[in-house]
Amino acid sequence: MSSRVRLRIDLAYDGAPFAGFARQPDQVTVQGCLEEACERLLGQPVSLVCAGRTDRGVHALAQVCHLDVDPQTGRGGRAVADVEVLRERLDALVGSAIAIWSVRVVPETFDARFSATARHYRYRLIDTELAPPLARHDHWIVGEPLSVPRIRAGAKLLLGENDFASFCRRRAGATTMRRLTSATVRRPEPGRVDVRFVGSAFCHQQVRSMVGCLIEVGLGNREPAWIGEVLAAKDRSVAARVAPPQGLVLERVSYGHRWPAAPPRGKLR
Amino acid sequence: MSSRVRLRIDLAYDGAPFAGFARQPDQVTVQGCLEEACERLLGQPVSLVCAGRTDRGVHALAQVCHLDVDPQTGRGGRAVADVEVLRERLDALVGSAIAIWSVRVVPETFDARFSATARHYRYRLIDTELAPPLARHDHWIVGEPLSVPRIRAGAKLLLGENDFASFCRRRAGATTMRRLTSATVRRPEPGRVDVRFVGSAFCHQQVRSMVGCLIEVGLGNREPAWIGEVLAAKDRSVAARVAPPQGLVLERVSYGHRWPAAPPRGKLR
Repeated sequence: MSSRVRLRIDLAYDGAPFAGFARQPDQVTVQGCLEEACERLLGQPVSLVCAGRTDRGVHALAQVCHLDVDPQTGRGGRAVADVEVLRERLDALVGSAIAIWSVRVVPETFDARFSATARHYRYRLIDTELAPPLARHDHWIVGEPLSVPRIRAGAKLLLGENDFASFCRRRAGATTMRRLTSATVRRPEPGRVDVRFVGSAFCHQQVRSMVGCLIEVGLGNREPAWIGEVLAAKDRSVAARVAPPQGLVLERVSYGHRWPAAPPRGKLR
Repeated sequence: MSSRVRLRIDLAYDGAPFAGFARQPDQVTVQGCLEEACERLLGQPVSLVCAGRTDRGVHALAQVCHLDVDPQTGRGGRAVADVEVLRERLDALVGSAIAIWSVRVVPETFDARFSATARHYRYRLIDTELAPPLARHDHWIVGEPLSVPRIRAGAKLLLGENDFASFCRRRAGATTMRRLTSATVRRPEPGRVDVRFVGSAFCHQQVRSMVGCLIEVGLGNREPAWIGEVLAAKDRSVAARVAPPQGLVLERVSYGHRWPAAPPRGKLR
């Protein structure tokens, strides 16, 4: 019988200073920073599992991770006995580009990656010629007028269970079948367009690739039906270039009714 | 008779990469970048005058500058003949942290600094314990609950024509008399507080110093009446620490009905 205690961490980050979520040698990564901070506070080696491994420069408003702590080792016992103190210390240690919303003890059957039932991503665009410079941190400044109805018509063709090979950076041996349950496009104010996707899971670079193609439709360079052709081709070479990372944010991860709801938290913007 | 042509430039910038607006030796400044780009495009030395010299790290949504161009020198003639082309080239040359909203020919009686009738500044605060990391680029994350009515009561005591010596970094021989015409405090959404000041002009660090003091009132460390005492003291040592620069943005400069209205532009956030 394992005596390990599983912790769930909910966090946000500004993707700009990181070479993505996943740990990589000689790179500053979210996972690297988090694991290092956890190891220092817990006095034991840890291994983090996250809900969605975001790429270099991609932001997260609500990333979810889990890790297992041995209460018999280092300061593990004290840490799991008061997870709010652990949260405060972790938040202070990881620096201002990461915010730790909560740290909670969860059953070992909770898995940040495999228990997740849906991932929610938002991509933010600016389609005026000129944009306020601060917006470049979290928008793709397309700079030309986009048609929301055209983007909507194209996005509709991506819904359902599909082979998204055309929109994915392939990993050897991995399936590119995914279920896209929702794609919404709206203009929250003049000059801005938000595209939101909800799906069971997404392949590597899938959201940015879908946005890259949809922008071709929104600009009028392609017809909405072209999105269906790209999907059917199952060939990445027919797709448009992927959209830049800074417009993308992992907004939410759903775990269904079995798991406690995410804690209250601020809005990203 | 002068043959020089006066140009008005309306611009925005992300203050983070700059050591303030004003040119300084061996520092990256907004003025330095702008003057260098103008000199390259016009083929002649230029000297910029701005409406409000913002400090290191302070943002601007609508800064205004003027400069005089000799059409007989370098590429000056061609540039003033098509100011929209000049705007486009300038915007491309100054990099993504600066956006050039417009370049216009104005009468020589227009002065970006002395014709201005009002400056509008906004200071953005977050008063929840935790904040999304992207917000740290343009908010002061105070981290504790602020009372808007208390801040309002304190801000009211600053209105009118006053000697703001307690709130200014003094410059030798300069007056610290200023007219503050408006101070508004509101909570645009839970967790956020915006403070806006409108005045004929502001001394060096005046807005950040007023905000620093008002936050002491908002946190409950001081009574609103204390703001009046600080004002009356005319002594900087009685004021609170100045608020950090990244929460501050120069939102607008007014020039009254004699001068053309500012061009349409995007919102900063």
